[in-house]
Parts: sequence; C-alpha cells; structure tokens
Amino acid sequence: MVKTIEWLNNTVRILDQRRLPHEVAYVDCTNHLHVVECIKNLAIRGAPAIGIAAAMGLARGAMDVKTNAAGEFLSGVRSIGDDLLGSRPTAVNIRWAVDRCLKLISDNIHLSVDGIKELLVKEAKVILEEDIQINMAIGRWGNPFIKDGATILTHCNAGSLATGGYGTATAPMRIAREEGKKISVIADETRPVLQGARLTAWELMQDGIDVTLITDSTAGALMKRGEIDLCIVGTDRTARNGDVANKIGTYSVAVLAKEHAIPFYVAAPLSSIDFTISSGDDIPIEERSEDEVTNVFGRCRIAPDGVRARNIAFDVTPAKYVTLIFTEKGAFRPRDLHFLEDPAIDLTKIRVLS
Amino acid sequence: MVKTIEWLNNTVRILDQRRLPHEVAYVDCTNHLHVVECIKNLAIRGAPAIGIAAAMGLARGAMDVKTNAAGEFLSGVRSIGDDLLGSRPTAVNIRWAVDRCLKLISDNIHLSVDGIKELLVKEAKVILEEDIQINMAIGRWGNPFIKDGATILTHCNAGSLATGGYGTATAPMRIAREEGKKISVIADETRPVLQGARLTAWELMQDGIDVTLITDSTAGALMKRGEIDLCIVGTDRTARNGDVANKIGTYSVAVLAKEHAIPFYVAAPLSSIDFTISSGDDIPIEERSEDEVTNVFGRCRIAPDGVRARNIAFDVTPAKYVTLIFTEKGAFRPRDLHFLEDPAIDLTKIRVLS
Repeated sequence: MVKTIEWLNNTVRILDQRRLPHEVAYVDCTNHLHVVECIKNLAIRGAPAIGIAAAMGLARGAMDVKTNAAGEFLSGVRSIGDDLLGSRPTAVNIRWAVDRCLKLISDNIHLSVDGIKELLVKEAKVILEEDIQINMAIGRWGNPFIKDGATILTHCNAGSLATGGYGTATAPMRIAREEGKKISVIADETRPVLQGARLTAWELMQDGIDVTLITDSTAGALMKRGEIDLCIVGTDRTARNGDVANKIGTYSVAVLAKEHAIPFYVAAPLSSIDFTISSGDDIPIEERSEDEVTNVFGRCRIAPDGVRARNIAFDVTPAKYVTLIFTEKGAFRPRDLHFLEDPAIDLTKIRVLS
Repeated sequence: MVKTIEWLNNTVRILDQRRLPHEVAYVDCTNHLHVVECIKNLAIRGAPAIGIAAAMGLARGAMDVKTNAAGEFLSGVRSIGDDLLGSRPTAVNIRWAVDRCLKLISDNIHLSVDGIKELLVKEAKVILEEDIQINMAIGRWGNPFIKDGATILTHCNAGSLATGGYGTATAPMRIAREEGKKISVIADETRPVLQGARLTAWELMQDGIDVTLITDSTAGALMKRGEIDLCIVGTDRTARNGDVANKIGTYSVAVLAKEHAIPFYVAAPLSSIDFTISSGDDIPIEERSEDEVTNVFGRCRIAPDGVRARNIAFDVTPAKYVTLIFTEKGAFRPRDLHFLEDPAIDLTKIRVLS
C-alpha cells in the first residue's frame, strides 16, 4: 500500500498528492517548514493526515531546537506549533495534534530535552498508528448502514490518502467489501482541486473497488434517477452541535440528499470534532487563491484573463441535514454528539447500530 | 459585438466557442455536414444558436441538392434535416428550425427549386434576426424581477453566445443594466465543458457587467450566506407542464434555490418549449463522451487512466422548482405554460408582471 506519510530516518516523507494520479512521488521534509509548506500547498491534505503531518512536523522541528534548557525548548516548540497552526485554518486536527504534543512535553518536562525529543518522535508515530486503528473502527460502525449492492456517493477525498491509511469516509466501504458486500462508489470530481477525480478514484481503483467519476453537478441528477442509495463524506471540523465543515460542495450534496430522502452520513474521527465550538457558524472557513478556480492544476487556464473568482474552500452542513456521524466510538445522531464530551457517558444509550 | 453565427457569401460562419476565451476564431461551413460537425463538437452550442445553425445548415445543404424536380429536392432537403436532427438530441430548437424550413418548402412547392433555395437562405437570416428580437423581449419581461443591486446566479451559458445575440438568461440582466440598475452576476463554471467559465464570464466582461466566477459546488454555500438574490438560467427544452431540461447541474441549483427560498427563473423562447411533450420525463437526455469529464479541454487529463466516468449532459428540473418562465410573450408560472399553445389565449390573464 502506498503510504500517505511516514517517519523515515529523521525525515517526514510525504506522498506528493498534487502529482497524483499521474505520478507517485514523495517530498522528504528535513525541517518543520517543509512540512508547513506541504500542508499549505496541498501536497498532503485531509484532516486526519494533516494532523499526523503536524505531529511529525513538530517532532522534526523540535529536533532542531538547539538548547538543553527545558523552558527555552518548550518556547521553541510552541513557535513551531504556531507555524503549523497557521498552515490551514479550517481543519481542527492540526490544533488537536499540536496540543497533544505540547501536553506531552509539559507532562515530561522533568526529562532531558533529548529525552523529550525522542518522546515526540515516538508520539508522532503513535498518532499515525492510532489513526489507522480509528479508521478501521469508523468502518466497523459505519458498515451496517451499507446494504449489499448499494451505490454510495462520496465528495472530495476522505480516503486512505486523507489519513494514515484506510480512510474515514472510505472505511465503511472497505469494511463492507471485506465482508463480501457488493458496492459501487460514485466519486464527485470535487472542483477546484479535483481530489475526487485525482485521489478518490485513484485509491479505490488501486483496491479494486468499483468507482465511477462524475462532475459535481451530476450528483443531483443521479439522485433524482434513484441511482444513489447513500452518501458518506468526511469532515475537516465538526462542531459540538453536529454542524459539519467539509470540502466546498458537501453542503449541496447534503441538501440534495435531503430532497431525495437519501441518508447522508459523515465519517468523523473524534479528533475532528471540536467540542469548543458550539455551532458551525464559528468554524473559520479558508478562502484560497482564485488561481485554483481559473486554472486546472495551475497549468490549464479555463477562464478569461482578468476575471474575478471566489474560491471558498469549505462549507458548513448544518446538523439537520446529517443522518448519522460515524466515529471510532460508534454511529451517533448529530444532536447526541455533545454527550461524547463526557467520559462517563454510557455510549450504548446513544449509539445507533443499524 | 462578436457574432455567434452569420450567413456570409454562401457560407455559414460560426464563432468557434471551443477556443474561447483564449482565442476568437471562426469556422466557415461550406456544406451542411460542416454545420452538423460544429453542433456535435460544441463549436456552436446553446439551444437558440443551434436552432439558427440548423436553419442555416439546411439552407446551405439545400444549395447542394442538384435537381430541378420539386419532389426530389424536398426529399434531398429532408435527408439534410435528418443529419441536423441527429447532431444533438436534447434541444428542441433544431427540430423547430427544420420543421419551419420544411414547411416553407411545402408552402412554396409551386416555385422553382432555385426560388425555394433563395427563400431558405432568406428564412435562415430571418430566424437569426427574430432571435435577437425575441431575446430582447424576454429581457423586458424578465427585467422587473431584478431589483437594483441584485446578485444573480446563472449556470452554463444562456448568453449572447448561445443565441443570435443578447442571450436568453442574460437578456433580463442586460435590460436591467440598460435601465441603470446595478447588478452583479455569479457565473457557475459549469463542468464538464466549462461554458460558464469560458463563455458567460467572457461575454459579460466584454459588456462591462460585474461577474464573479465560482465552481459549481460553491453556489449552495453562497446561497446559505445570503449572497444570491435570484437565479436565471436558460433551457434546451421545456415540456408542456413546465419541466425544464437544461445543462447538467441546473437541477441542483434549483433544489438549492428552493431550500433557500430564492426565486429560480428560466428564460425560454417559445421555440424551446415543446408542447408535444407532456412532462420532462419524456425529454431525451444526451450522454456524451467520458473524455469530457476525465479531461479538461481534451488536453489536461485530471483522472486516472482507465477510470470509468458518467457524462450526463443535461438534467430536468421539475416545474415545482421553477418560480417563473420568461418568454418573449411575458413571464408565466410553469403551470400556465400550456395555455400558450392556444393562439386565442388572453395573455394578460396569465402574465406575471412583477
């Protein structure tokens, strides 16, 4: 299996997704700013994957903080954390990973700086391994909602390329197939950056999963024809009330799904749920360069010179459009999501099993 | 003004829209099969424009039917009509133009073949002139529904490039601006063939109309933010009950507009209303080559080799999503459209004025 990201001889090796599907190439990051750049320019993308990248970037950056004084070290790592946090505003996973690693330092501040550096590297690798386990759990909880023979629409790429492996939205599909169900996937191409055409179609083909590519505008027509049974998408950040920020166009899919009474599921590792944000209105939405709209791949100009364009990278789907949220702890109604904040909650009371 | 199509020295000169916005180039058609090819390969597109092209193609083809026998001539022209009718299945305007020209022959079958040939050329030019007048009338009826300061979403290109001039969906915008209203247009890029990015943005910029390009997936997010006041689109064929066939993605825009209580208007010259079809279910929907989805402009590959794709070129928006239909005879509720079949109808009883 192609690895999205790995720690290799003290470098962070990142699969360069900008070059897919035409070329499988890697970027070897030897300092944390290389990692920041890879997140910004979308060489690596997908909320879980950039969380892992942030942890690895922090560990790699920490190695370059040349001091033996714990306070100075912590302040150096915090500054590296800020660089990583500035790379993309919408996904919560960078914040989650940076906070987790900073807490690790605080908890071990009595150790030597070299000792903490080793712990950070180990933690980054653990985060990667955990991510794969989390995705498989999401897949097991989501799988019962996929009937044999189902056709599943997905938007953007919340696949193995968006994670450490297995994917979030694709995990229930992969588990369903492992259980012998016949499934078909419809992949929205997902303009402007075409993650669906370049990444989702590619990775599902690698796994031999039946996939058909459509333009984003075609989803509605297929729903109207009765050719879509359910939708599963990922999320960059989900608010406490179940409002879901995800790639631009997700909201349109959700509205269309509601209009056709088609279930709309969101695969969300707990790391992508931001319990500090009460509703989707408070999720910062990244706007990116107009060039992504007026060009394809930065080399194929599709619009008149001088035209103005808007490139809103994400949208927020209100909880009322979301049937269930698949997490590693179970499938939940969006309105029950806030219970997960309480470590004492009896999950069997709020889980939806099928 | 750049001319979409014109009759010039016994050739049909067609602006090659595949090369826009990068290049203004023409195809000179010296026989009817050249015209058929231009319609098929989208050098010319837009329901009214291909109706004009069909009339000119028929007139040009008729010149090449070498006979003085009226019966033989009519059968030759019918065969040319069949070639034109086979070029694109969804738009009704080709059928409308071919039928009108064949009727002209029948009505004048007592004339010499050369005389009829001249009439056909004259008729094609009349159809072009009429189209511009029709569009201006559509604009005058639609204009009252555009408030000063409004932001209008449009999908695909139902602009002057889709017609003899002035456009259908763009006509109310142009009239509104002529009346001194400040308007802004949001143009969906309209994958796969990108008529919005290449054509609508380009032609509105030529006229100095404020236009912003978005990906098709962005319309929903802008509606949710309250940044769209109304939608106006064109149609390739509208059924008797007000169901509207138009470029793929129109249906999604209509569903989103309904969800946000935004008016959704369709600009439809009577030539695009097919009273022989009782509902949109009976409108044939063209599926085109997968290459349009997997490539941009046939030269920029965006998807993995061997991926399967669907390229449904049109969708049908049920009448219940359509607020009003702007025609050259007035603005009408979709449910009243069938009254227009009756030449004795008192239009003032069913027209919606504002």
